[in-house]
Amino acid sequence: MSGAFSGPSAGPSQAGPRPHGGAPDVPVGRGAVIYLDCNATTPPLPEVVAEMLDALRVSWANPSSTHAPGQAARRLLADARARVAAFLGCQAAELIFTSGATESNHAALLGARVPGRRRLVLSAVEHPGLVALAQRLADEGTPVDFIPVDAQGRLDLDAARALIDDDVALVSVMGANNETGVVMPVAELAALAHARGARLHVDATQCAGKSRLSFADSGADLMSISAHKIGGPKGVGALLLRRGVALAPLIAGRQERQRRGGTENLPGIVGFAAACERTGATLAADLERLRVLRDRLEQGLARDLPALHVYGRDAERLPNTSCVRFGVLSAELVLARLERAGVIASSGAACSAGGTQPSHVLLAMGEDATTAKAGVRFSLGPQTRADEIDATLAAARRAVLPLFEPQPQAA
Amino acid sequence: MSGAFSGPSAGPSQAGPRPHGGAPDVPVGRGAVIYLDCNATTPPLPEVVAEMLDALRVSWANPSSTHAPGQAARRLLADARARVAAFLGCQAAELIFTSGATESNHAALLGARVPGRRRLVLSAVEHPGLVALAQRLADEGTPVDFIPVDAQGRLDLDAARALIDDDVALVSVMGANNETGVVMPVAELAALAHARGARLHVDATQCAGKSRLSFADSGADLMSISAHKIGGPKGVGALLLRRGVALAPLIAGRQERQRRGGTENLPGIVGFAAACERTGATLAADLERLRVLRDRLEQGLARDLPALHVYGRDAERLPNTSCVRFGVLSAELVLARLERAGVIASSGAACSAGGTQPSHVLLAMGEDATTAKAGVRFSLGPQTRADEIDATLAAARRAVLPLFEPQPQAA
Repeated sequence: MSGAFSGPSAGPSQAGPRPHGGAPDVPVGRGAVIYLDCNATTPPLPEVVAEMLDALRVSWANPSSTHAPGQAARRLLADARARVAAFLGCQAAELIFTSGATESNHAALLGARVPGRRRLVLSAVEHPGLVALAQRLADEGTPVDFIPVDAQGRLDLDAARALIDDDVALVSVMGANNETGVVMPVAELAALAHARGARLHVDATQCAGKSRLSFADSGADLMSISAHKIGGPKGVGALLLRRGVALAPLIAGRQERQRRGGTENLPGIVGFAAACERTGATLAADLERLRVLRDRLEQGLARDLPALHVYGRDAERLPNTSCVRFGVLSAELVLARLERAGVIASSGAACSAGGTQPSHVLLAMGEDATTAKAGVRFSLGPQTRADEIDATLAAARRAVLPLFEPQPQAA
Repeated sequence: MSGAFSGPSAGPSQAGPRPHGGAPDVPVGRGAVIYLDCNATTPPLPEVVAEMLDALRVSWANPSSTHAPGQAARRLLADARARVAAFLGCQAAELIFTSGATESNHAALLGARVPGRRRLVLSAVEHPGLVALAQRLADEGTPVDFIPVDAQGRLDLDAARALIDDDVALVSVMGANNETGVVMPVAELAALAHARGARLHVDATQCAGKSRLSFADSGADLMSISAHKIGGPKGVGALLLRRGVALAPLIAGRQERQRRGGTENLPGIVGFAAACERTGATLAADLERLRVLRDRLEQGLARDLPALHVYGRDAERLPNTSCVRFGVLSAELVLARLERAGVIASSGAACSAGGTQPSHVLLAMGEDATTAKAGVRFSLGPQTRADEIDATLAAARRAVLPLFEPQPQAA
C-alpha cells in the first residue's frame, strides 16, 4: 500500500460521511492517515476531477481556433471565468488566468509597479517564493523594505505608515500568513498605499476558502490566487487586476486580453472553476465548522500536553490554521512521531526547506533559532471531520507526551 | 450535439480502428468531423487522461512536503522527468517543467542571453507569441534582427552568418515552422552562433512527435516544448537548458533546482510524460505514415482542384503539415466551406488573429497581402486515418471546386 494515498482518510470505523464530499478514503500503510496539511495543498474535489476529465476528453480544442470546436472551447473558458470571478468577487474582465500564485506574484511585482517610483514594501512574513523574488529585485537595485509584525504575527501598521512614502511603487502583503493563519489588515494597507499613490498587491493564496474573500471589497489593486489550495488542480491560478491598473505582462501574447500569453490551460481552468463553485456553495458553514474543529484541537492539545504555545492565539486568524509548539521540541521530531501515529502535519511552508531551517515567519515574531524550528502547523480542510480531530489528539498524546517524560527502564 | 467534440472522429462506416488509439469518436452536428488542425492542438491521448486522473485522485500531495505522501509525489515527479527526458534526448537535470512553450520562450529570451551582449537574432517566421516578446524587447532598447527566408520558407543561412556577430547575446529560431512545416537548419545555426560566442534557443513546439527530436544532438543551448501538441495536456511544457548554461529564472523559487518556482503541476507533468512515452514508442512508424498520408492529400488536391499552390513543397518539411492555397481564394472562405463539409483545418497559427490578417510567415516568403490571406493549413496527427484523407479530398471537391466554376442558374 505504500504510495497509495488519497486524502483525508477514514478515521475510526464509526466515522460518518465527510461533510464536504471529499476524496475517496485510502489508508496509507497499516494505519489510517489524517491529513492536516491543507495549507500546503488539498485533494482535488470529485467535482473538479469530473469537470477536468470532461475538458480533457471532449473540450480539448484550442480556444483561439476559429473553427466550431475552438469556439466551443472558448465558450467553456468564458463560462469558467464567470464562475471563478463570482467566487472571488471580481469582474470577469479583471481576472487573468495564470499557472498559479507564484506566477501571479511575479506578474504583479514585476509588471504593476507605479512608473517612476523606486521602492517596494512587503511584510516581513511573506511566502518564501515572494521573498526570493524580492531578494532578486533588491539585488538588481530596487530598494525593498519590510513591515515588521508583533509577537502575535500582527502587522505593525504604524511601521507601515512610516514606510509607505511617495516613492513606493507597490506594497505587497499576503492576505493571511500561511504558517500561522494570522490575517493581515488589507483594507488599512490599501488606504495607506492609496493615500500615497502606491498600489497594493495581496497574495491571497491562503485566504480563498478560508475567509470571506472579495476582491471588490478588499481595496487591493492586484490579488494572487492558486487553485490547488481550495480543492482545485495544481498548475492553475489567477491574477486579479483592478480595472484601470496598467500591467506589463510577465508572459506576452494574445490570450487573456493581451495580459498573459500561451494556450489556455482549459482543463485546469475548468477544474479551478468547479473548485470555486463548490467551495463558495458551503463557505459560510465551512468557516464556522473549521473554527470549531480548530478550537477543539487547540483546547485538547493545551489540556493533554505540557508547555503548549499557540502562535497568533490573540490575533485574528484563518479558522482552519493552528501553529503551535510543544515546549521547545523540534518540529522535525514531533512531525515524524505524529506521522508514525497516523497524523500528517507540517512545519512552515512546504516550499521552504522543511524543518531544517528556522521559520522566517516565527523569527519575525520574535522567536529564537531554537523555537523558530519548533513550530508545528495543523491546517484543516472542509473534509476534516470531528472524529479526525479526536484521533489527532489521541495520536499527539501517544507521540508527543512521552518526549516530556523520563524514559521508562527496560523491563 | 453542438459542442460535443471529441477529436479525430469517425469517417465512413468502413473505417478501421485508429492506428494510434486516439480519443473516442463523437460526431459534431450531423456530419462526422475530420480534425486536421493538429498543429494548433491535439486530443489528449487515453493514456494521458488515465495517468492524470490517477495523479489527481491519488498522488495529489505537494512534492515539496517532507511527509510520506509528499515524498511519494516527489518520486512520481522524478519518474515523469526521466520519461520526458528520454523522449526529448536530454538529461533529467537539463529539463525544467514550465506552464508551456510560451513561458519557456520567455524564460529563454529574458533569462539566458549572454551577459554583456546586446543583440537578439530571430528568424522572420517565428510564432506570434515570440514575435510579441521580441517586439517588447525591441521597445525596451534591445536591437532585434530577423533572418529572412526564401520563397520556400527556408532560412537564409548566408544572411544568418552576416547577422550573427560578437554582440549577439542569443539566436532564437523555431525548429520547424508551425504554418508551413518547413524545417529550420538548427545544427548550422548552432555552429554559427557558437562560433561567435552566442547562445542558440530553439522553439521546438512543432517538432516533438513530428521529427526525430534530440536535444543532445541538436546543438541548441536551450529548447522550448509544449505537451499539448503531442497528445498531452494544455498548461504544461518544458524548457531544456544545456548543462553549464546560466539562467536567470523568469519565475523564482525553490522548485526545479531554483530554476522555476511554484508548486509543480504534477497531474499535467505526469500527463506530459505519458504523452512522450506513447509518442516515442511509435514515432518512426508514425513519421513514415504521416508523410504518406500528407503526400496523398497534396497529390489528391493537385489532381482535383485548379491552381493549387503548396507552400514549401521543395523544402524539408515536417511530415504532417501541408500549407496550400487554392488560387487566390481567401482562407476564411475556404475554411468555412470545408468545415461545413466536415473537415476542420486552419489558417496560420491559432494564436494569431485567424483569417483576418495576412500571415506574417507567408509575407516573409514573398506573398502579397492577398495571397498571404489565402494559406490553408492541414496538419495531421498520429490518429489520422487514410480514409479521412480520402474523405477530406471528397469534401474539398464539394466545398472548393464550385468556387472556381461559373455559378449555375437557379432552376
